[in-house]
Amino acid sequence: MPSYKAPIREVLFLLNDVFEVERYSNLPGFSELTADTLQPMLEEAGKLSEGVLAPLNRIGDVEGCNRHPDGSVTTPKGFQQAFQQYVAGGWMGVTAPEEFGGQALPHALNGIVMEFAFSANHAFSMYSGLTQGAISALLSHASPDLKTAYVPNLVAGKWTGTMHLTEAHAGTDVGLSYTRAQRQSDGSYRVSGSKIFISAGEHDLAENIIHLVLARTEGAPKGTKGLSLFVVPKFLPSSKEGSLTPNRVTCGSIEKKMGIHGNCTCVMNFDDATGWLVGAENGGMPAMFTMMNHARLEVGHMATAFSEVAYQNAAAYAKERLQGRSPSGPKFPDKPADPIIVHPDIRRSLTTIRAFTEASRALTLSTALRHDVALRGKDAAAIQDAEDHLGLLTPVIKGFGSDRGFLSTVLAQQIYGGHGYIAENGMEQFVRDCRVTQIYEGANGIQALDLVGRKLRMDGGRAVRAYFKEVDAFLNQCVEDPDMSPYVTPTREALRRLQDATDWIGGHGAKDPELAAYAALAHMWCLMVAAARRKLAEPDAAADPYLQAKLATGRFFVQRMLPETESRLASIRVGSAGAAEIPVELF
Amino acid sequence: MPSYKAPIREVLFLLNDVFEVERYSNLPGFSELTADTLQPMLEEAGKLSEGVLAPLNRIGDVEGCNRHPDGSVTTPKGFQQAFQQYVAGGWMGVTAPEEFGGQALPHALNGIVMEFAFSANHAFSMYSGLTQGAISALLSHASPDLKTAYVPNLVAGKWTGTMHLTEAHAGTDVGLSYTRAQRQSDGSYRVSGSKIFISAGEHDLAENIIHLVLARTEGAPKGTKGLSLFVVPKFLPSSKEGSLTPNRVTCGSIEKKMGIHGNCTCVMNFDDATGWLVGAENGGMPAMFTMMNHARLEVGHMATAFSEVAYQNAAAYAKERLQGRSPSGPKFPDKPADPIIVHPDIRRSLTTIRAFTEASRALTLSTALRHDVALRGKDAAAIQDAEDHLGLLTPVIKGFGSDRGFLSTVLAQQIYGGHGYIAENGMEQFVRDCRVTQIYEGANGIQALDLVGRKLRMDGGRAVRAYFKEVDAFLNQCVEDPDMSPYVTPTREALRRLQDATDWIGGHGAKDPELAAYAALAHMWCLMVAAARRKLAEPDAAADPYLQAKLATGRFFVQRMLPETESRLASIRVGSAGAAEIPVELF
Repeated sequence: MPSYKAPIREVLFLLNDVFEVERYSNLPGFSELTADTLQPMLEEAGKLSEGVLAPLNRIGDVEGCNRHPDGSVTTPKGFQQAFQQYVAGGWMGVTAPEEFGGQALPHALNGIVMEFAFSANHAFSMYSGLTQGAISALLSHASPDLKTAYVPNLVAGKWTGTMHLTEAHAGTDVGLSYTRAQRQSDGSYRVSGSKIFISAGEHDLAENIIHLVLARTEGAPKGTKGLSLFVVPKFLPSSKEGSLTPNRVTCGSIEKKMGIHGNCTCVMNFDDATGWLVGAENGGMPAMFTMMNHARLEVGHMATAFSEVAYQNAAAYAKERLQGRSPSGPKFPDKPADPIIVHPDIRRSLTTIRAFTEASRALTLSTALRHDVALRGKDAAAIQDAEDHLGLLTPVIKGFGSDRGFLSTVLAQQIYGGHGYIAENGMEQFVRDCRVTQIYEGANGIQALDLVGRKLRMDGGRAVRAYFKEVDAFLNQCVEDPDMSPYVTPTREALRRLQDATDWIGGHGAKDPELAAYAALAHMWCLMVAAARRKLAEPDAAADPYLQAKLATGRFFVQRMLPETESRLASIRVGSAGAAEIPVELF
Repeated sequence: MPSYKAPIREVLFLLNDVFEVERYSNLPGFSELTADTLQPMLEEAGKLSEGVLAPLNRIGDVEGCNRHPDGSVTTPKGFQQAFQQYVAGGWMGVTAPEEFGGQALPHALNGIVMEFAFSANHAFSMYSGLTQGAISALLSHASPDLKTAYVPNLVAGKWTGTMHLTEAHAGTDVGLSYTRAQRQSDGSYRVSGSKIFISAGEHDLAENIIHLVLARTEGAPKGTKGLSLFVVPKFLPSSKEGSLTPNRVTCGSIEKKMGIHGNCTCVMNFDDATGWLVGAENGGMPAMFTMMNHARLEVGHMATAFSEVAYQNAAAYAKERLQGRSPSGPKFPDKPADPIIVHPDIRRSLTTIRAFTEASRALTLSTALRHDVALRGKDAAAIQDAEDHLGLLTPVIKGFGSDRGFLSTVLAQQIYGGHGYIAENGMEQFVRDCRVTQIYEGANGIQALDLVGRKLRMDGGRAVRAYFKEVDAFLNQCVEDPDMSPYVTPTREALRRLQDATDWIGGHGAKDPELAAYAALAHMWCLMVAAARRKLAEPDAAADPYLQAKLATGRFFVQRMLPETESRLASIRVGSAGAAEIPVELF
């Protein structure tokens, strides 16, 4: 069975040395991230993921969720108890305001806590990820009464949350959805319809489930403009303290699927269920996008998480598995064979994974920090800048991140050879579970459309200009240091290709977020290398192999992985060459 | 559930127009492939795969194989009957000599028949693939008595075959294996040991299972040089007609694995089991490589097969699923949305898959034709040339083919969005089943080592020089036709990069079969486009959209996919940059 160790040193290096989190101490919640508190907090989160969540990952895969004849759904053995421990630790409410029982800590910190949990047990962690998304949407859009009625119990993990968008005929094109809501004289609504692919739609982890549902009121316009958001609880909270009345919402079936078996994917039926409007009528999309953007950024943490845990296990296996000899002669002549890590292709696969993992964590974390600025900042210009950055990079992180995260799990599985195909070794579960991250929260093709169709053009390209300026400014700072040039030169080159492509895209409508992703990850490597070199200059850190490894891994990224941008640009320039000319009936 | 239609027109185009199979009519078995016989034969094979094997694919996945307390293993419902139909059609013995009950037809034809079967039901088809491999090994290496005793029943499908290489501690490094064989006074051997990952090791499809087992005789040298090959039947054929005595070989367990659930993957225990030597003592590796090379080339057919069936279903879905509108305005304004094939990224994904599928089929088929020349040719120089070609391209086809085949299944699944993650739609099964092709018959890292470590250097680089010469000669022929230059120019460029890399590899030991694969597939596209253009020049074929699509798909390949070779070469030149410098303990 795979093991997991939370990468605490990596996180401390990023927060303390690369992003210098003390620079954010003017923002609410950040002042508590001191050297004294941060490490113990991370260790506590790590312990829970390592000791409680990880051991349940394979059990969850094998047992899956079960729907019973009465419509109830049970989660795999051990999930209930683990969920109690999870909420008892206060992890559901890391970022929620104190008035609702939360800890009001930064989103960036919460992202890291979630990364640990996703590494350990993705299916389990989706229950809390969705609940946190529901909390965000209610906090941003619901009336004070609704907040009071729902948020405290969600933060406490007594209740959990979901998001209901998809219908059988309306996936990407959510504007086609039929589900309708009829206003009642008391201001509530009757919601009727059927939603599919509802993660955590029905289960036994909490006493109530709060469904956030897109539906159409009477006379609403067609398409997305006529969608409103409703809160539809499984049980209606009644005036009597603690008493719950069943609502008319039921789980019709649960899907059998490729992975994340520990998380139930439900068909949910609403049959005149009682709900309440969240935000304005016909204002459902912006409200739903609060959850969606939260979830998309979270996919960046998931991609890092899968890449990390798959790497950890593949690296351990590569150091342990004796098979063949090093091409440069036996390294362990006393043993029957050398460990397979002596083979250059194994080492290259491992380095490919970690060169992505470490930069992906940096990029997601740095974007999560902008999220905190956007939500909690005081300075209007800084907030706008943070929002621009968030809008620009969220689809890149979601799309490219999940594509590369999936590739990491495949590469890691491959290192196990035949043993990687066997279920009990757990590597194939990472592949199956990770695969969904490329699909949900908007399939990756949609991320590309979002980036290129909207984000690059928005406000006359303000966001992308600001981004180029920021990266350029940093690269210019590094010019005086000749030891940085092996990193800076290829990064500048990648940035230039991205600029070329962006100009090209403006005129030609091509779609390719990969160039943006490569440039952004190269930027992260430059930042990490610069920080590592600063540390190495300190007398007690000289020659620290951990920091030396950062320099080597960064070099691998910029020299071996970044050339990919050259062929991407060539492909973009060609456009759809040929693909557009094949008549539809010949596909 | 996915559907499947055998791509008969594709195969006829390749055999008749691209490779002009009549040119091979001097070889035994080819004269029967006339215009009159070929199409009916392919249609018969197609019917079996479409109507009998495909409907069992998902059943096989869901039910899997079951091992019972007595050690017997049952295959999924319907497999037995399908297997009877399969062997009754004579498909097991397509290439086997007539004296053993076969049809003595070309291997190239058999490869196509197997491609259809692999598309329809990969797990099922492995039973016959392994049996055909065992037949090849026995025909090439066994004594006349052993051939008589085993081959006819294998050809008739009364018995099936297996290959036993791997042990728990000896996978890639098969030389570490412990299984031993002790010679008896009657010339037989007692075989003892335990083998793992034995596909089709125990099942209920045939009355006997013929295990070909690598084992070490007493006093044999260490490593691969001391391995001998043994035939160890499940039941010992006794002198009395039809009576079978149990041998001491049992299935210890079957593995739970990521995919190919319909094929049992067994741990097999030999406890003084009776066996007979195949070929010379300590000559096990060459004998086993007869099976292995057969299997590696077959992976090319599997990769084509997965890519084809995944494509067919994704294309059908893309034409049917209504979602969103074309970026250039509604194409079907009367419908609630346009079919998703109007979206450029969907069309690009589909074209990416088919641009691989069609060239992969061409490359595998053209290599299978060399296989026929190598085995059945009369001219020594032609045989050597065919063997060189086979040796050079088999690892490329196995390694790159399975990597791209897997990618095709992932791209096709992605087109289904969330519906691709749901088991009943079957797209996720293609991904899980195809994944094993990158692992078995030598994990893909080994294919790279085989190509670069051995094949490129063998006989002073004779094979690779001959290959370059062949492709060059064809490209030179095309020079006079300006309409070919959009294809020829990028192909020549890719070939030049491969030549650069080969020179570089000679000196630097880098490993990358991808450049060779891209150049080989580009060569295939040039051949197909040239053939399509010849046909288009015929009066009744002018503007045939099928042939026009070939020109467009080929252009997509050379213009959009081939630029990849540029960044591959850049990466190769950099070598392992960074990866070699990270100390082992920091992985």
